[in-house]
This record gives sequence, C-alpha cells and structure tokens, in this order.
Amino acid sequence: MVVSETSPVVEGDAAVSKKAAKKAAKAAEKQQKKAEHKASSGTTPAESEPDYSEGHYGTYKLMQSSGEHRDRVYTDVKDLTVHKNGQNVWVRARLQTSRAKGKQCFAVLRQNSSTVQLLVNVSEEMKVSKQMVKFVGNVTKESIIDVYATIVKTAIPVESCTISQVELVASEVWLVSSARAQLPLQIEDAARPEKNDDPEGLKIRVNQDTRLDNRVLDLRTPANQAIFRIEAGVCRLFRDILTNKGFVEIHTPKIISAASESGANVFTLSYFKSSAYLAQSPQLYKQMAIAADFDKVFTVGAVFRAEDSNTHRHLTEFVGLDLEMAFKHHYHEVVDTIGQTFTDMFRGLRDQYAAEIAAVGQQFQVEPFKFLDPPLKLEFPQAIQMLKEAGVTLGEEDDLSTPDEKLLGRLVKAKYDTDFYILDKYPLAVRPFYTMPDPNNPKASNSYDMFMRGEEILSGAQRIHDPELLTARARHHGVDINKIAAYIESFRLGCSPHAGGGIGLERVVMLYLGLDNIRKTSMFPRDPKRVTP
Amino acid sequence: MVVSETSPVVEGDAAVSKKAAKKAAKAAEKQQKKAEHKASSGTTPAESEPDYSEGHYGTYKLMQSSGEHRDRVYTDVKDLTVHKNGQNVWVRARLQTSRAKGKQCFAVLRQNSSTVQLLVNVSEEMKVSKQMVKFVGNVTKESIIDVYATIVKTAIPVESCTISQVELVASEVWLVSSARAQLPLQIEDAARPEKNDDPEGLKIRVNQDTRLDNRVLDLRTPANQAIFRIEAGVCRLFRDILTNKGFVEIHTPKIISAASESGANVFTLSYFKSSAYLAQSPQLYKQMAIAADFDKVFTVGAVFRAEDSNTHRHLTEFVGLDLEMAFKHHYHEVVDTIGQTFTDMFRGLRDQYAAEIAAVGQQFQVEPFKFLDPPLKLEFPQAIQMLKEAGVTLGEEDDLSTPDEKLLGRLVKAKYDTDFYILDKYPLAVRPFYTMPDPNNPKASNSYDMFMRGEEILSGAQRIHDPELLTARARHHGVDINKIAAYIESFRLGCSPHAGGGIGLERVVMLYLGLDNIRKTSMFPRDPKRVTP
Repeated sequence: MVVSETSPVVEGDAAVSKKAAKKAAKAAEKQQKKAEHKASSGTTPAESEPDYSEGHYGTYKLMQSSGEHRDRVYTDVKDLTVHKNGQNVWVRARLQTSRAKGKQCFAVLRQNSSTVQLLVNVSEEMKVSKQMVKFVGNVTKESIIDVYATIVKTAIPVESCTISQVELVASEVWLVSSARAQLPLQIEDAARPEKNDDPEGLKIRVNQDTRLDNRVLDLRTPANQAIFRIEAGVCRLFRDILTNKGFVEIHTPKIISAASESGANVFTLSYFKSSAYLAQSPQLYKQMAIAADFDKVFTVGAVFRAEDSNTHRHLTEFVGLDLEMAFKHHYHEVVDTIGQTFTDMFRGLRDQYAAEIAAVGQQFQVEPFKFLDPPLKLEFPQAIQMLKEAGVTLGEEDDLSTPDEKLLGRLVKAKYDTDFYILDKYPLAVRPFYTMPDPNNPKASNSYDMFMRGEEILSGAQRIHDPELLTARARHHGVDINKIAAYIESFRLGCSPHAGGGIGLERVVMLYLGLDNIRKTSMFPRDPKRVTP
Repeated sequence: MVVSETSPVVEGDAAVSKKAAKKAAKAAEKQQKKAEHKASSGTTPAESEPDYSEGHYGTYKLMQSSGEHRDRVYTDVKDLTVHKNGQNVWVRARLQTSRAKGKQCFAVLRQNSSTVQLLVNVSEEMKVSKQMVKFVGNVTKESIIDVYATIVKTAIPVESCTISQVELVASEVWLVSSARAQLPLQIEDAARPEKNDDPEGLKIRVNQDTRLDNRVLDLRTPANQAIFRIEAGVCRLFRDILTNKGFVEIHTPKIISAASESGANVFTLSYFKSSAYLAQSPQLYKQMAIAADFDKVFTVGAVFRAEDSNTHRHLTEFVGLDLEMAFKHHYHEVVDTIGQTFTDMFRGLRDQYAAEIAAVGQQFQVEPFKFLDPPLKLEFPQAIQMLKEAGVTLGEEDDLSTPDEKLLGRLVKAKYDTDFYILDKYPLAVRPFYTMPDPNNPKASNSYDMFMRGEEILSGAQRIHDPELLTARARHHGVDINKIAAYIESFRLGCSPHAGGGIGLERVVMLYLGLDNIRKTSMFPRDPKRVTP
C-alpha cells in the first residue's frame, strides 16, 4: 500500500531520520518500478544485478516538508538558454513523453508552456545505469520529476520543443508525483492545432465535454496556459487603467432580496427560513455607490443568469467587469472613458502578452485583434443605414438581432478596419426602464453597446437619477414600483448624473483571441447542463 | 409634477431649444422654491420684486446630456488651496449644511471627504440678490449644487472644514439634484466621533441598523469614504504584490455541485430542474489550478457561509482573498510568501493611505497597526506555553478558542510589539482532512493561522497531494469518499506539493483599522438577518 511506503507518519512511525527516509524512498522506488512494469512492455531488471546508479534515481517519499533539499536551487525550463551551455541544473517539470530505446531514453519535459528535450544515456562514468534508463522510460506521462542534468547545446535545433537550442543530459532523475498510467485524454491530442487550413487538422481531436470533464489535464495545454494568463491580464489591465483614472474598487453583494432586473432568469436560493436571489448584475449597487459619493467605481465579480441558453456565448455564471461613473454634463464623458479603457487594454494585451497570444495561435486560428485610438463611435441610425445598404431592413426602433450584429461587425471591419467599436444612441424602446431618454429625440436614448468582432461585450447607459422620471419609466415598462422602492429611494437623497456599463470577462477574452466558444475562456464553466467539476 | 418640469422629453416635447430649456429651468426653480418654502420658516419673496440675480441661480433642468456646459471645467474641493486665492472656479459638491441670516448664507460644501465653507452675500455688484441668498438657504441638505465662486483666503482658519485656509464666495448657485427635506439620518450624527475618551461621545449616535438601512447616506461620512478606499487598497496591494511574485489570477465558480467542505453551513440553490450549492471556499478550484500547472494562483471573490452566527465578525457573504502555491520542498516557502505579502500590504497601507487612516481616526479610536518585517512566526506549542504562563491551560491537541486567541494576541503584542503574527503547526486533530500531517510529529500538521489584533484572518495549510493518503485521511474524518471522488482524482494526474490559504477581506480591513464590527467594512453587508439593501 502506497500510503505506508510514502507517509510513514500516518502509520505512527514518526521518528523517520534522513537515513531511514532515504531507505524508505528506495523501497518505494522499487515498488514503483514493479508497479509500472505491469503497465509497460519492458522487463524487470534482475534485482541482484549491481546498479551503479543507486542514489541517483528513484521515487521521492511523499513531500511532507521534512526539511530535505530545502536549499536546492531549481532552474525554470524557459530559462534553459544556450548561454548556460555546460552548466548543471536542477529542473522540476512534467514528463510529457518518453521513449526508451536500449541504452537511451529520450523524453520531453514540460513546465507551463515551455518544453525541453531530456536525454538519459547509459554511462558508467555519469553513473547512469540501464536500470535507471529503464526507470525513466517507465515513468508515466504527466508525472512530475526532478532532474539533475547538464545543459547541452544541440547540434540541430529540437523543433518539437519550445527550447530548441539546448537539451538536458540527465545524471539524476527522481519521481516527485506520479500520474496514473491511463489518462482520460492525451495532452498531445488536446493541444493539436485546430486550424482550418492545417493538414494536421484531420487528426484526432478531443471533444469539448471530455476536455471539460477532465479540465485539470485539459488546462495543461500551451494554449490553455496562455488563455488564462491573458484572462488574468485583462482583469489586471482593466483595474489598473481605471484605478489610474481615480476609480475606486467596490464589492457588491451576490445574495439579494429581490431580482435585479426582472423576475425571469434569476436563481433562487434558500436563505435561512426565507429565500433570496443571486444577483444578475451589480448595477443597482454600483449606482448606490455613486449616490454615496464614490463618484467612479468598478467591481469585478461573479454574475449569475438562470437562462436556459445553450449557445457558444452564454454561461449561467460569468465574471462581470462593471463600472459606473458620475459625470458633470454629458454621458459621453463616461462613454469616452470606457472606450479609452478598452483601447488601453487592447494595447496592453498586444504589448505585454505577445508570447501568450502566439501560444494560442499555435493551436487556434487567431487573427490579430485590430483597434483604433480613439475608438470608433457610431450612432444607431448609422448602423441601420450600413445594414440597409447591405440589404438588411430594420425599423428605427428595432433592436439588432445577433446575426445583424455579426454582419454589422463585418461591415464596420471592412470600412474602418477595427474589431472594436461603440454603438451609441440605441432606441429607447429596446432598453431597460432605467435608461435615460435622449433629450432631443423621443425615440432615442442615452445608451450604448460596445462590440468586439461583431459580438456585444458591453451594454451600458446613462441611468435615470431623477426619482420621478424613474418611477414614470418603470410604470411605463410595467415594473412593479413596490419591488424597486429602495432603488428609487436612493435618488431622493441627491445623486449625480451617472452612466456605466457591464463587461463579460470571458466574452472579451474569447473575442479578443477569436475563439469559437466561451467555455474555452472560463476555467470551470457553468451552463444549464454543467456544474462540474 | 416635477417630471414634466424637468424632463419635457418624456412628455413628448422633444424640441427643447437652449432658450426654452433656460425658461423651463426658471420655471422649475420657482416651483422648487415654493416647494421648499413649505418646509422652511422663511417667507416667499414677492414674485413681482425685481431680482438682479436672474440667470445666476436656480434649478438646472434634469441632466439628460443635452450638450449644455460641456466645456465647463470644475475644481475639486480638495484642490481649493490658498495658492488659488482670488481665482474664480466652478465646484460641484453636496450642500452639507446651510444657515441663512438676513443678507448672508453660510454653507458647508462637501465632496467625498473634503469640506469647504461657502458664503453667499447679498451684493448688487456681484449680482447676488436676497432672493438668491434665500434660494440657497432653502436648498435641502445633501443636495448637489454647482457653485461659481471666488476662492478667498480666510482671516482665521475655518476649523470645522477640512479646507480651512480658504472659503468660497459665490456668484452663481445651481441645484443639480435635490435631496428630500426629511433625511432618515443626519450625516453630522453618523460622522460624530465615537471615541471613548471624547466628551463629544455622549452626543447622539446613529445605531447600526439605521445606518445599514440607509447605507447610501451612511456611506457619505468621511470615515466611510475612507474605509472603502482602504478596502480597495487592500485588494489592489494583495493582487499587485502577488502578481509581482509571479502569481496568476484565476476565477473559480461560485455555483458548485457538492458542498465544498461539509454539508453544513451551505446555501442551496435551485438550478434548472436540479439543485446546486454556493461555494464556501474556492479551495478545491485553486488546488485544481495547481494540478493544472498554474503553479501560483490567487483569486478574489465572493464566499458564502450559511452559518447562523450573529457576531461582530461573521457575514454570510464575504470577499475572499485566496491564494495557493506549488512549492519545491517545504511548505514554509508558501508561509513565508504569504507572511511577506501581509508585511508588504501593511507597509503599503501605512504609506499610501495615511490620509484615509487619519480620516477613520477622526471618528473611531484607531491605534496604529504594528507589524514586523519579517513577520513573527510562532509554533503552536509556544502559544500553548505563553497561554499557560498567563494561566490558561490547554492540551497539546486542543484548538484555540476565540477568547484564547484574543488573549494570545495581547500576550504577543506585549512581548513582540506586533499586531500581526503567524501561528504554525496546528494540531492535526483540529484541522480538516486534507491537511498534510507533520512528518516528524504524528500529532502536528503542516498548517497555520495568521492573526491581526488577536483575531484570525487567514487559515491555511499544506494540502495532501497524494490520492492514497488523502483517501485515508478523509475516511479517518468520516468524509464520504464518493462525494470527493473528483477532488481525489485531481491528484492522480500528477500534482506538485502545494500550500495556500484564504483571507477574509472585511476582517483584514476591520482589524487593520481596529474597528469593532465587520459590518463597518462591508459596503452592503449580508448576515442571517439582513439581505438588504
């Protein structure tokens, strides 16, 4: 039983000296080799045969922080450069693949998105025995190993690895954590390019549910390692840009007493002896923060939609990047702030995440994202006109359908060469009750959507900050005034004119990279059919 | 009816020219004055009396972004310095208080935490009529006004305002958004010092439920303006410090299929035709991110506890600052990283938020927070010994009670002069099943809590990354193995040794500032009895 081998403490054997630990590790190593033999086609080395590699390879006992090897310095795979040729280093990485042939074992080590070739050659001088080569050949894929090795410049570049100028020649190999022999998916398959014009594209792919069911493995592909670093970058840039503009981060409650916008699409929750709801938007709280003199606020957090939409772009739980801002005289002060935030964010991604964007591009067809500075701002009637010229007829008070939006995105791209634009002045009729009417056109409103590659990623508006007008508009929309009494009351305490918007993080990342499904940009996605893992 | 006055668009009168708008504003102003008269003890000026201030005061029509005044430049109250003596500026601020006496009105303007005195003197030369003075005197407290005024150096400092060297002498005053005459609480009351040794302490205070019921008003006090800016600072520092150390931000789902740690204290949710739960911790997802090679991760997000605890330090929803980190050989690599993160955060708060900390100190007794660099780290047996010397007897496998923790905090403060310390090596028996046992002491574990002013603000541990040991420990704790099968499975795919912890944001802010209730540091707190506003 592995537990007793690797964690003697649990079995009550507390006084494990370093010497005893080494002995235990040896024992564990033997057992590991035996166990692995069953799954492999090799032969077991005769136990009596002398092994001059003893003490240079094997399985570590379970890492319980015993204090051993605390001072050992490790080198990252990405830092294995040709300038370090000849140096001996410790590396901890996953064994991605291995192939033992007689006296040699070739393996690929992977750390995050970086890979390097590892050579284990039988050599009495280097104390690498054939038993040791065999041991390495039997380490299961995706196991984590410690390698002590010499950095050696390669004669010809190793094209299959990200580190191609050097390889590692091992003198010690230790198993840190083993993966099971049968993996539910292979990283090579999960990482295979999915480009349309790629002849490789015909090979085995891993379907999305298999990926998501085994997300821990799926997330190890270079593209996924990059996607979630880019997602972290979007959040960081969003917050830093706004903080520099004087915005204050707030946190809004997810548990609320009444549905945010309407009774539909809201998750209900048992709350002690009563019930409550999950917030579909932080909007009312952002607005209260404005009424409470925080002037410019943003919040990053979970948003919930109980919508039974099984599409490429809907999740039941997503991360909202929301902001709200008081303005002095015109909501375009806010629109321009948001637009500039996007432009600065796109520039930041392009300049700071080039390697990650390229890594995603290795697997998926990623067209570079184009943007303008300042961003393009169109008014709704202009969009109607462009669509009309393309053969789509819309009334001036109609909303855009999803196909209209996509077409418009293509038209805008062709005409202005930008993947991001702002569409201002939506018809009043298609916007929520709290949207400020346009003072000059009774059919228009002070509201806007923002688009990336023809898909909406932000919806926003100047909000009505006058309690009487708000009440009138709510009644007009058939909203129960009693249910929003506290909301209306906020504006009886004096409130600056303000506008804002909400951005879906996963959509921004999906569309920035030109990916085809929002589940690719949610680490653990939730949809009507999935609440695991 | 105010709606028709201030937002003619809604009534179909779209073609409001600037001239007409001005006329409408005048009409609204008259009405406003009449309305306010009812609540005031003044007299209505004879409508026929000539008013040489016409066009210099009144009520703006509703700010619908008509395009008027777009180029007007405003000066912030905090920037009204003596160096600007004699300059004319536009200021938008709340009217905190006003007192009209004959030909003069003294008012206090407030913007965020800054206040300045405003003088409105009858003066034909400056076109300030007695009607205008009366108008200002009748503006309700907490209304937002635009003031065009001259900055004038004061003969003696205005002690009651944060800006004491200058005051504003008005030549125009416009009402932007009016507050209702009867406010549910007065800002002066809500902002009154609550220091124990303060003679002012005997005056009227606003009780906590009244504050929370009217949070929009309550949040306007200087202390609250400061508290939530400090809270934003804690989040920013936490993220920046960790990002600089190579951590990646992740987002973990709040909707989960099984209760995180135990079936107790979890909120249940209807999820389409089934049910789901609200995550009590992001821990399992952080660990999966480690198993998925993200190495060092943090996440900031809502955490839910369905615990019927009505104490000064429990919320049913709070913001978790969570982190998890793979290490090479010893979990102290992680403990030291977390400890240093706290030290850097405390230093950042002290250096970057001095004004905000002082603002909180104006209302509450705030002892400066003391910390050491590097932070103090004690082991559990040392704590037991210190408590024993103070007369409290504890077994070596007992957990600390809340009073024990508080006493220990005082003992540590007296001995080491620090309000922050780390307590390492908790008894294995009192920690969750996934806690790594100490390899050298069967009764101890590789786990730790961190404390601020004697209250726990972080709990963490090295987690068991070996599936067999994890299974054995879960069984030992009576955990249903089937329910955590997916969790255990994560560790069959190869996983680095790792440790982490979770921090309660609101507790950190409460304890950093020495406040007495966690509801003071949650913008819209949730507890068993409160889900509003």
